[in-house]
Amino acid sequence: MISIDDISSAATRLRGVAVETPLIRCAELDQVAGGRIYVKPECLQVTGSFKIRGAYNLLSQLGEMQAKNGVVAWSSGNHAQGVAAAGGMLGISTAIVMPEDAPKSKIENTQRLGGEIILYNRYEGDREKIAKRIAAERGASIVPSYDHPHIIAGQGTVGLEMMLQAQAQDTEVDQALVCCGGGGLIAGSAIAMKSLNSDVKIYPVEPICFDDTARSLCSGQREKNHQNARSICDALQTESPGEITFPINKKLLEPGLTVSDDDVRSAMRFAFRNLKLVVEPGGAVALAAILAGKVETARKTTLVVLSGGNVDYKLFSEIMADGD
Amino acid sequence: MISIDDISSAATRLRGVAVETPLIRCAELDQVAGGRIYVKPECLQVTGSFKIRGAYNLLSQLGEMQAKNGVVAWSSGNHAQGVAAAGGMLGISTAIVMPEDAPKSKIENTQRLGGEIILYNRYEGDREKIAKRIAAERGASIVPSYDHPHIIAGQGTVGLEMMLQAQAQDTEVDQALVCCGGGGLIAGSAIAMKSLNSDVKIYPVEPICFDDTARSLCSGQREKNHQNARSICDALQTESPGEITFPINKKLLEPGLTVSDDDVRSAMRFAFRNLKLVVEPGGAVALAAILAGKVETARKTTLVVLSGGNVDYKLFSEIMADGD
Repeated sequence: MISIDDISSAATRLRGVAVETPLIRCAELDQVAGGRIYVKPECLQVTGSFKIRGAYNLLSQLGEMQAKNGVVAWSSGNHAQGVAAAGGMLGISTAIVMPEDAPKSKIENTQRLGGEIILYNRYEGDREKIAKRIAAERGASIVPSYDHPHIIAGQGTVGLEMMLQAQAQDTEVDQALVCCGGGGLIAGSAIAMKSLNSDVKIYPVEPICFDDTARSLCSGQREKNHQNARSICDALQTESPGEITFPINKKLLEPGLTVSDDDVRSAMRFAFRNLKLVVEPGGAVALAAILAGKVETARKTTLVVLSGGNVDYKLFSEIMADGD
Repeated sequence: MISIDDISSAATRLRGVAVETPLIRCAELDQVAGGRIYVKPECLQVTGSFKIRGAYNLLSQLGEMQAKNGVVAWSSGNHAQGVAAAGGMLGISTAIVMPEDAPKSKIENTQRLGGEIILYNRYEGDREKIAKRIAAERGASIVPSYDHPHIIAGQGTVGLEMMLQAQAQDTEVDQALVCCGGGGLIAGSAIAMKSLNSDVKIYPVEPICFDDTARSLCSGQREKNHQNARSICDALQTESPGEITFPINKKLLEPGLTVSDDDVRSAMRFAFRNLKLVVEPGGAVALAAILAGKVETARKTTLVVLSGGNVDYKLFSEIMADGD
């Protein structure tokens, strides 16, 4: 349903809009892993996360009337910024439903990018309902954060890009670790990567308690996270795998990996010290899985996506001060 | 004396050794500047700074006997790590004379990369004398941190790379801001950039009190910094412009720009918040010059080099906590 051609078209649309983030290597990381690790730092992407890719890919394909009526999205912050930025570039008005406990910087940045913010309580309100009501009132289009072919194709440009970059360096890739919330990034990336090399193994990484994709891959059906679940990874707190993303992921992914909040904190410190990158908790889970030895990396070549860097300084500072 | 061909050859030698760091854009930065800013984040380079480029370019051209006898260098930390890493890759033993107040992480990393460390007092000892004595005892070669054609050509690959990257994006560059200690990075980069487009204006940026190049460009001769001078920028505390670098810089550079320690701190906070990059003080001076309005950027396209990211967490944390 979504093909490598859709992802290539998305890559063309994104030229000059999204940054081609580099593949970075680091001696300390290779040493820990006992193999070759290539890091894809999407924290350096426009708006500080990969989300601009899917948002722009969808918004740029809206019809004239749809574009005129604006869009509505819900997001804890990264998709919010992606949608607001894409709207700003394309002259499309954007309204975003955000949890009131989202990182301050994510709310402020979304606002600065021109997004209209509607706050709600993450544990009581129903963001989807709120967004749909607003969309109905305004005749606006909903921009889902993962469950849409154009979003999946846009995020898939991450996978396409890193495989082409590895190829350009004559590097044969064995496996890739990609964070997983609703599963849009990994679904699109898996389609792209498997098209270029069907032998590449692709692992979803989730926070403990938000391991809905890992459990769904076991049971074969879409499992839900418990509503009392909490995690430091604000960007990965989805309820369950997507209707569109899950069938793709079920077909293409290896079993899921999970990491603890402490694994994530360690990975953020490692990124500061050795990669010189500011990575947010949700953006660090794949690196955390490597460092915590959740997957065999010895004598292998592994791609690791750092999906975002939008973290408030206060939290960042607390995590750094912890040391390890 | 050093030509674009030398720099192209260095680029070939560095393939697979140094990372091709990307050109990054950022809406907030363009907004502040009123023009287009492209950031070249050499903090993402192997060893956390551009120094691997020159070090590897020199070490890889040593004769068999020279390579066997090892090398000696002096450095506050970034050149140290570059030399140690290049030595490790090429199987050449390295000894590095470092000030005892150098950032802890720089000393530790140099050691971990296989460098033998010799500490001295920055304000009392003469690092050059110490290094030359060791070199004489061992029959080892000196690896200067800037005043050598191979070092200059290696560092010049930064300028070459960013011009080619801008060209690949059909971007006409008006000017570039590059930090300046001994002047190796900017001399090499200026040769490369001016060869590709003689209209590009290249500004050296220095910390206040370490503005030897700015003053030398005014007087036409190599001026010295006062020995009581202090700066937060540990990487840029050279005594005076180089014998080889200055004649190049005199011919190719615009007048020098200077920034205060506070300008640098602000720039480091900006890089954290908006670029998701960890930049060390000396690596942030060019960005600081943009943010402090030291050069006209409105309606222009400006390249800015962030030369390194090797900063201890304690200092980084203090600077972040200051806020602005």
